[in-house]
Amino acid sequence: MPRVSYVNGSYVSHAHANVHVEDRGFQFADGVYEVIACIHGHLADEQGHLDRLERSLAELDIDMPMPRRTLQMVMRELLRRNHLKSATVYIQVTRGQAKRDFIFPAAHVAPSIVVITRPFNFEKTNKCEKGVTAFTVPDIRWKRRDVKSVALLPQVLARQSAYARGGAEAWLVDDDGLITEGAASNAWIVKGSRIITRPPSHSILRGVTRTALMKIANDLQMTVEERAFTPDEAYKADEAFSTGAAALIVPIVKLDDHVIGTGVPGPVARRLYEEYRAYADGLRGAQLKWVSGLNDKNG
Amino acid sequence: MPRVSYVNGSYVSHAHANVHVEDRGFQFADGVYEVIACIHGHLADEQGHLDRLERSLAELDIDMPMPRRTLQMVMRELLRRNHLKSATVYIQVTRGQAKRDFIFPAAHVAPSIVVITRPFNFEKTNKCEKGVTAFTVPDIRWKRRDVKSVALLPQVLARQSAYARGGAEAWLVDDDGLITEGAASNAWIVKGSRIITRPPSHSILRGVTRTALMKIANDLQMTVEERAFTPDEAYKADEAFSTGAAALIVPIVKLDDHVIGTGVPGPVARRLYEEYRAYADGLRGAQLKWVSGLNDKNG
Repeated sequence: MPRVSYVNGSYVSHAHANVHVEDRGFQFADGVYEVIACIHGHLADEQGHLDRLERSLAELDIDMPMPRRTLQMVMRELLRRNHLKSATVYIQVTRGQAKRDFIFPAAHVAPSIVVITRPFNFEKTNKCEKGVTAFTVPDIRWKRRDVKSVALLPQVLARQSAYARGGAEAWLVDDDGLITEGAASNAWIVKGSRIITRPPSHSILRGVTRTALMKIANDLQMTVEERAFTPDEAYKADEAFSTGAAALIVPIVKLDDHVIGTGVPGPVARRLYEEYRAYADGLRGAQLKWVSGLNDKNG
Repeated sequence: MPRVSYVNGSYVSHAHANVHVEDRGFQFADGVYEVIACIHGHLADEQGHLDRLERSLAELDIDMPMPRRTLQMVMRELLRRNHLKSATVYIQVTRGQAKRDFIFPAAHVAPSIVVITRPFNFEKTNKCEKGVTAFTVPDIRWKRRDVKSVALLPQVLARQSAYARGGAEAWLVDDDGLITEGAASNAWIVKGSRIITRPPSHSILRGVTRTALMKIANDLQMTVEERAFTPDEAYKADEAFSTGAAALIVPIVKLDDHVIGTGVPGPVARRLYEEYRAYADGLRGAQLKWVSGLNDKNG
């Protein structure tokens, strides 16, 4: 069975999943995306991701290419056709295909939508046993990082820069010397009894996994302090970790040349990982009243 | 005859000029571009644009997809197949197609290349008779504007914002209150006998048309001062204009609510336009020793 992707209304062989060279996603990065984890058949934080997709599109004045409910069906149909239970679902929406012009195209030009699924083994990619090394990199991105746009070139360069030095993650540092977030994740540290992460603003993406973890931490009566922190504070923290939709929670055991805490994943990151997995797998769905109706029925 | 474009080694019907959904240009804006004007069969500033293309690619560690000479042949063949003498030639190169990952793909992944031509009437689009209105917009772009990347979403939003207010151009203003450049052009003002434009740095693109104009202005013994200027200085200037590869020279007769100079295109912009046209049409090529060997033979 060939792999299938969804492109502008059709389920097509992934090998032939194409967009036109004048799609504004290709020529202008004029579009947004989401990545949703499907863990054992359950779309984790589905409504949070779709809420954010709609918000990103609204900020750019791009229409939703289809009703939310239809998009939810497409994701499920694509997972079914590809026989996937554990996967990432990648959704990209652009302003559509039009003669190249910076100005928005005429109203009749429909947005483009692409949905791609890929097998993802959440057990195998779990970094909570060993943790990873991260490097700080100057944050040279544009100023609307709250919009999850595909203009990801600065993030690509940041991740590559960390990778070239043997790191698995890049933490970005703004002009004020404060960590904004990871190149494709949110950044957290733990100091004593406090969990610290930067508050949402135009400077960072409001992570969907981050939001769920805030709620889980509150439920567990952990203290979360929303404030920015410096690399120096991170070096001296008890724990550090990144969070994101596919990576879930990734303990950082070394940042630049500094071993964090005891050099192994700490108890807070590990506890949050276990709790998030229980939640994302749908086990705590009813309790948290967080999971969508569709998931309740189909998950 | 259907319109033809060039995609990754093939001349294809423009209607079927596609790239894969996992081309890194589409998913990450991980690529660069150039626009070259072909004026009456002559590729204006061809070598300058190809120099910049190579520089942008080198900055991103992307290989040239083919030797420069071959790319020059492709452009000419595409113009020939489309029966075009006056056109824009759009070249886009990306890091290629690979499984989605922020990290650069393996070395064997070849860069993608797309070349698109479009008829362009340089007489009809000449704005030197009436000029245009521009609006200042905050510059929210990333910090490597010297790289001509396709991560153009901020420029799209800036141009649209100006367009929505009735403007044809957006001039971007940085955090220091200085104009960086236009959304897709360089910004210039004239005050007394001085022509003022911002010096090249990571803050702006080193315009190829800008570079040619600097040389032309010097040849004409005009005084060019390379320094940044504020919107307020522009409001009070005698002239203001934008320069770019397709638009050439566009006099700004109104910026925000301020009429510039006498409210009509000024003598410096008009003179530079005439001189640039003579140069770009190839008429002054030999004199300036600026035009490529290929142009000399084929132009």
